[in-house]
Amino acid sequence: MPDPDAPLLRALAGVRPDRTPIWFMRQAGRSLPEYRELRVGTRMLDACLTPDLAAEITLQPVRRHGVDAGIFFSDIVVPLRLAGVEVEIVPGRGPVFAAPVRSAADVERITAIDPRSLDTSAIEEAVRIVVAELGDTPLIGFAGAPFTLAAYLVEGGPSKEHLRARAMMHTDPGSWNRLAGWLASVSRVFLQAQISAGASAVQLFDSWAGSLAPHDYRGFVAPHSSAAVRALDVPVIHFGVGTGPFLADMRLDGAASAVGVDWRMPLDEAATVLGTDVTVQGNIDPALLTAPWPVLEGHVREVMRRGRAARAHIVNLGHGVPPETDPDVLSRIVALVHDAGSREAGSPEEVSS
Amino acid sequence: MPDPDAPLLRALAGVRPDRTPIWFMRQAGRSLPEYRELRVGTRMLDACLTPDLAAEITLQPVRRHGVDAGIFFSDIVVPLRLAGVEVEIVPGRGPVFAAPVRSAADVERITAIDPRSLDTSAIEEAVRIVVAELGDTPLIGFAGAPFTLAAYLVEGGPSKEHLRARAMMHTDPGSWNRLAGWLASVSRVFLQAQISAGASAVQLFDSWAGSLAPHDYRGFVAPHSSAAVRALDVPVIHFGVGTGPFLADMRLDGAASAVGVDWRMPLDEAATVLGTDVTVQGNIDPALLTAPWPVLEGHVREVMRRGRAARAHIVNLGHGVPPETDPDVLSRIVALVHDAGSREAGSPEEVSS
Repeated sequence: MPDPDAPLLRALAGVRPDRTPIWFMRQAGRSLPEYRELRVGTRMLDACLTPDLAAEITLQPVRRHGVDAGIFFSDIVVPLRLAGVEVEIVPGRGPVFAAPVRSAADVERITAIDPRSLDTSAIEEAVRIVVAELGDTPLIGFAGAPFTLAAYLVEGGPSKEHLRARAMMHTDPGSWNRLAGWLASVSRVFLQAQISAGASAVQLFDSWAGSLAPHDYRGFVAPHSSAAVRALDVPVIHFGVGTGPFLADMRLDGAASAVGVDWRMPLDEAATVLGTDVTVQGNIDPALLTAPWPVLEGHVREVMRRGRAARAHIVNLGHGVPPETDPDVLSRIVALVHDAGSREAGSPEEVSS
Repeated sequence: MPDPDAPLLRALAGVRPDRTPIWFMRQAGRSLPEYRELRVGTRMLDACLTPDLAAEITLQPVRRHGVDAGIFFSDIVVPLRLAGVEVEIVPGRGPVFAAPVRSAADVERITAIDPRSLDTSAIEEAVRIVVAELGDTPLIGFAGAPFTLAAYLVEGGPSKEHLRARAMMHTDPGSWNRLAGWLASVSRVFLQAQISAGASAVQLFDSWAGSLAPHDYRGFVAPHSSAAVRALDVPVIHFGVGTGPFLADMRLDGAASAVGVDWRMPLDEAATVLGTDVTVQGNIDPALLTAPWPVLEGHVREVMRRGRAARAHIVNLGHGVPPETDPDVLSRIVALVHDAGSREAGSPEEVSS
C-alpha cells in the first residue's frame, strides 16, 4: 500500500514534504538497458497489454533511480486499441492508425463505440502487480488528453503542427466536439481502471497542446480535458509542452492538483501565473542531461530554487527522458534533489534565499 | 525595377499603404501543380542552384495569386552547400547532413571555411532574372537564422526539440558561439548576394527558435541573428514559430523592420508586445485553409482587424503554405485582402472600428 504521506502525495496535496519528490516522464523506457533487453521481440502495444511485462518495465526505473513514484508503462493509444481501433506504434515514428478519422461519418463511426465496453482487465492486472511491488512508493497512472489523441487520430499518425485536428475544430465544430468528448470518455475509462487497481495519482498528457492558439485551447480543448479528469478519486497532474501562453488554463478550473511546465518557462514565473493553490511539476531541460555534471547540477539547483515560489514542487524534466540518456545521470539527479531538498527542509532560512 | 512605393515596402517603412500587402511563406512550392511539374526529376538543392529554374519557381505564385512580393525560391541550407558542406534535402524528411557538427573539433573544422569564399553567382543570376521579370513587384530574399541552421547541423538532420544544438550552448558555449557566429556570416553572405542582385527586402527564418527558453534565446541566439542582418541595405523581416514568450527580442534591437508572428498570438497582442516602431507580419492559421470559405473569410478579416493595432501590417500565414493546400484558396485570400484593405484605406472611420 502506498504511504499516504509519501512525498509525491504530500506535494500534490499542497504541503511541502520533507523530501522534495522527483520522478521522470518516460523514466520507464528506452534509456534503460534492462528495458531494451526486455522489449526484444515484443511490439510496443503488446508489451503494454502483457501485465507481467508492463509491470516489470514500470518497476525498473523505480528500483534503479530511487524516484518517488512509478509511472505506469503504457501508451496514450492503448485505450483506443482496447476500443477496437486499429493502431500500431511504429518504432522511430509513433502511433499510426489504419484509418484516419477525418469526416463527420468517420467521427460518427468511431464515437458509436461505447467507452464503457472497453476490457481494461490487462491494465488492471498490471497495475495491481506494480502496486504490490512498489510498497510505500505511489504509482502514477496516466492517459492522453483528448486533443493530443485527436492530433494523431485525425492525421492518422504523427504530424508537426496538427493541422487536420485543428482544422476540424473550425470546419466542423460539431464533429470535433463529438470526437473530443468521446476521446475524453475513453481516457477517463483508462484512468479509472488504473485508479481502481491502485494508482495513487494520475497524469494527463497533452503533449501537443502547445500547437494551439490560446483561444482555441479554451474553446475547443480545455472543456474536454476537464471532462477526462474532473472528480476522479485521486489527484491529477496536467502536463503539456509549449503551453506557456495559456498555462493558467491548464489548471482545468481546479481539476488539476499540479501543472507540469516544460523547460521554456522558469517555475517562479509559472507559479505567478498559476497562483498559490496548485503544485508545479518540472522542469529540468532535457537538453542539459548531456552537459558536464557541474553545469547540470547548477541547472537542477536553479530549477529547485525557482520551484520554491510554488506551494509545492515535484521535480521532473520539462519533457520525456530522451532515449539516448545515460541512466546514471538520472540516478545522480535523484540523489542531488533528495539531498538538497532535505537540507533545505532542515534549514528554513535557506528557503527564502 | 521594383516600385519604391510598393505596398510591401511602404509597410516595412512603417507607413500604412493604400493596399494591404500580402504574400505567403512557401508560396513558391509544392501547393502549385506548375511547380510539381517543373520539379520532376530535379533534386531540391539542384533546383535552387539552377538560375532559370529557381527564377521560374519564384515567379509562379506571383503570376498566379497576384501577391505583393516574390519570395526567392531557395533553401536555408543552400549557402552551406555553397560552402562545401555535404547536405541533401531528403523528400518528406528535410535537410540531412553527411557529417553532423557536434564536437569542438567538428566546429573548428567547419568554421575554418571562409564565408567570403562562397561562390554565390548562381544565386545572383537567379535573383537578377526574377527582379527583371517582377517589374514593380518587390522580391524578398531570405536566409536561415543561425539557431535554426544549427538545429539541423548539430543534429545532422531534422529533430523535434533540437536537443543537441541546445545542449551545445551549455556544454561548450565557446564552440556554440563560434558555430553560430560562423552560420550568421554564411547567412549574411547569402543575403548580401540576393540584395546586390536586386532583392528589395529580406526575411530571416528562425523556424525552430520556439524550442528555446527565452533566457537561452537572449543569451545564445539573438546576438548571432542580429549579426546576420544588422545594417543591411534593405529592410529585414524576422520570423519564427512559437516565439511568443520572447517576441520583443525578435526585433533584434531594431535590426528588424517587421516581425512575423505565428498563428498562436493575436496580432493586437503582438503589437502591444512589439511596440509602435515595428511592422507586424502574419498570421492566418494554416489549419484554416481547408475550412469552408465563410469560416476562412471571417478568420482573415479578424486577422486584418487585429493587425490594425500595429503601425503597419503585412498579411501572411502564421507558418508556410502546407503542401496539400488548394492554390485557389490562396488566390481568393489575396483578392479578399486587397479588396478589404483598399476599402478600409478609403473609409477612415472604419479604421478605428
